[in-house]
Amino acid sequence: MTVAFAPAGITPRQARVLDTMLAAQERLIAGFEGVEADAAAEAAASAGAQEAGEPRRFGDHGWLRPAGGGGRARVIEDGRVFERGGVNVSAVVGERVPPTLAAQHPGTEGRPWFATGVSLVLHPRNPHVPAFHANFRYFEVGATSADAAAEPLAWWFGGGADLTPAYPVTEDVRAFHGALSDWCARHPQADYPAWKAACDAYFTVRHRGEMRGVGGVFFDELTAPADPRHTFHADLACVEDGIATLLPAYLPLVARHRRDAYGERERRWQALRRGRYVEFNLVYDRGTLFGLQTGGHIEAILMSMPPIAGWAFDHQPEPGGPEAAALAFYQPRDWGIAGGDAVADPATTTRRTA
Amino acid sequence: MTVAFAPAGITPRQARVLDTMLAAQERLIAGFEGVEADAAAEAAASAGAQEAGEPRRFGDHGWLRPAGGGGRARVIEDGRVFERGGVNVSAVVGERVPPTLAAQHPGTEGRPWFATGVSLVLHPRNPHVPAFHANFRYFEVGATSADAAAEPLAWWFGGGADLTPAYPVTEDVRAFHGALSDWCARHPQADYPAWKAACDAYFTVRHRGEMRGVGGVFFDELTAPADPRHTFHADLACVEDGIATLLPAYLPLVARHRRDAYGERERRWQALRRGRYVEFNLVYDRGTLFGLQTGGHIEAILMSMPPIAGWAFDHQPEPGGPEAAALAFYQPRDWGIAGGDAVADPATTTRRTA
Repeated sequence: MTVAFAPAGITPRQARVLDTMLAAQERLIAGFEGVEADAAAEAAASAGAQEAGEPRRFGDHGWLRPAGGGGRARVIEDGRVFERGGVNVSAVVGERVPPTLAAQHPGTEGRPWFATGVSLVLHPRNPHVPAFHANFRYFEVGATSADAAAEPLAWWFGGGADLTPAYPVTEDVRAFHGALSDWCARHPQADYPAWKAACDAYFTVRHRGEMRGVGGVFFDELTAPADPRHTFHADLACVEDGIATLLPAYLPLVARHRRDAYGERERRWQALRRGRYVEFNLVYDRGTLFGLQTGGHIEAILMSMPPIAGWAFDHQPEPGGPEAAALAFYQPRDWGIAGGDAVADPATTTRRTA
Repeated sequence: MTVAFAPAGITPRQARVLDTMLAAQERLIAGFEGVEADAAAEAAASAGAQEAGEPRRFGDHGWLRPAGGGGRARVIEDGRVFERGGVNVSAVVGERVPPTLAAQHPGTEGRPWFATGVSLVLHPRNPHVPAFHANFRYFEVGATSADAAAEPLAWWFGGGADLTPAYPVTEDVRAFHGALSDWCARHPQADYPAWKAACDAYFTVRHRGEMRGVGGVFFDELTAPADPRHTFHADLACVEDGIATLLPAYLPLVARHRRDAYGERERRWQALRRGRYVEFNLVYDRGTLFGLQTGGHIEAILMSMPPIAGWAFDHQPEPGGPEAAALAFYQPRDWGIAGGDAVADPATTTRRTA
């Protein structure tokens, strides 16, 4: 694929990863727009012609970075299903790797770098449909198009996906984690238990002592040290398979809940949970802070913000209500799917047999 | 005054400053509750007895800090005028001054410290009424009750006030800045032009290149070096006069606008501006980040969050509309009141003669 924002002079290998990210963006948006089309058709069928209206689509916003590269932010707002969300691809370059990275990768000092990635965030309107975030990214130091055949001095993939339900349902969480676990099981370099634990730790609102949602997987610096199964192409295949896992992991949850009834109470709780999401993103999320501090494209970075978020002083959910039950989900928990074996879920009395 | 959260063994001087903060809290809440009482009386008069209802009051939430001291958060939510807001007083101590502070104040290493302050944030419901924030604080190192007569090794006051209107009105901004300028003019250690510039710089959402509002004053490390006019008592008098300036600076703006008509458009713009407020507080505000990172009382710290905030992708106000006009106010600007001299306001054709 050729895109207007691709940095000048990228190597074939860099272009190959960028192609992966661009293809992911197309496929993800087709999936999410399909949901909007279904919802539009249902609205037309149930309410008659005057309610028909076009399905909501993702807008298209290209952006260029003065120092090199840019991106394409595809954003939906005020959708029937997705109140706000977006899928962003970027590819950026620099002439000298940042000092903190160079310190971790000796020999890369002062060398050019390249980064590309795809990230998505969806904030559904219905409080019973979980919010969803995923990101896959690639970083490389030292290769230039002048010597395209040479290996970069250092390279790695990172990524992850996490689910943020305001009203978590055990079966949904297990299905989501199960899809991610199945993906990891197909790739020797992937490690679901470790990546699940890393996700729980990363997406924690530390000052609240709670996760923003029910986790998923998170990994960083996936590269190819000595292990021959761990080549660039094997890692790329792992990432591409992870991207392919996103729609089957998430869309069934949307389909299951997007017609659930809700009212002001549920919208208020959703707003408060979104407030926690905002706290995490603005106080702790490394990607957000890095982007804000380095002059990234603000609107693409803050695409992750919810349409509306709320705060209330020392909010205590009604004892015994579904909001109080939700809080128990926002702590690290064994979902009983690691390795496909049945494991007792400490928080419920039900079991899932593999 | 005696309060449950006062740290054990504070010196008479520390207790004196804490008394100032507690008295400020009482006076400020009386002022804001007076506004709520007026609004309740009006609602009763215009809608008949069935709408009467009690005036909304500030709740009272004491908190203790395990390491010493605590605070009292007085919070209002869902008021007729103030949709969310609070006035918090705290007094906390530690056995060893934090290393970063010790480095700036040689000789204080390993010595005990004391800090007290009052802070307020008000998020009015009506989008035409500006949001308001103020904070006054005192920090001291080295004095203990065992040697109560000794001077602390280092001490200083800090503080400020800033106004955040979604629909700024030039006359309101001038009146607000004018009240602060008049306060500064009464105290030789206060410097309105410098403190105004510091406020503009501090309350800037740097990744947006815009202030969160229209500024005010901000000062830090106000102490008594060589200047004899600059004693502890003179500085305390300056701070007390600054606290006394808050209600006369702000309440007239509330009175002027709390009956202004508004609809969904104005609420939406208010929500987007509150989103910028959240971005500032969570990404840049030193007090918020220090509190979150050091295990402060979360609800008292995040009392500053609005009840509802919103985000939209690359929102562009309608050209020529009041929202577009508002944006011009969120940049540093000379309000024509410094020193009481008439100064041309670059953004309007009107002048104010002193």
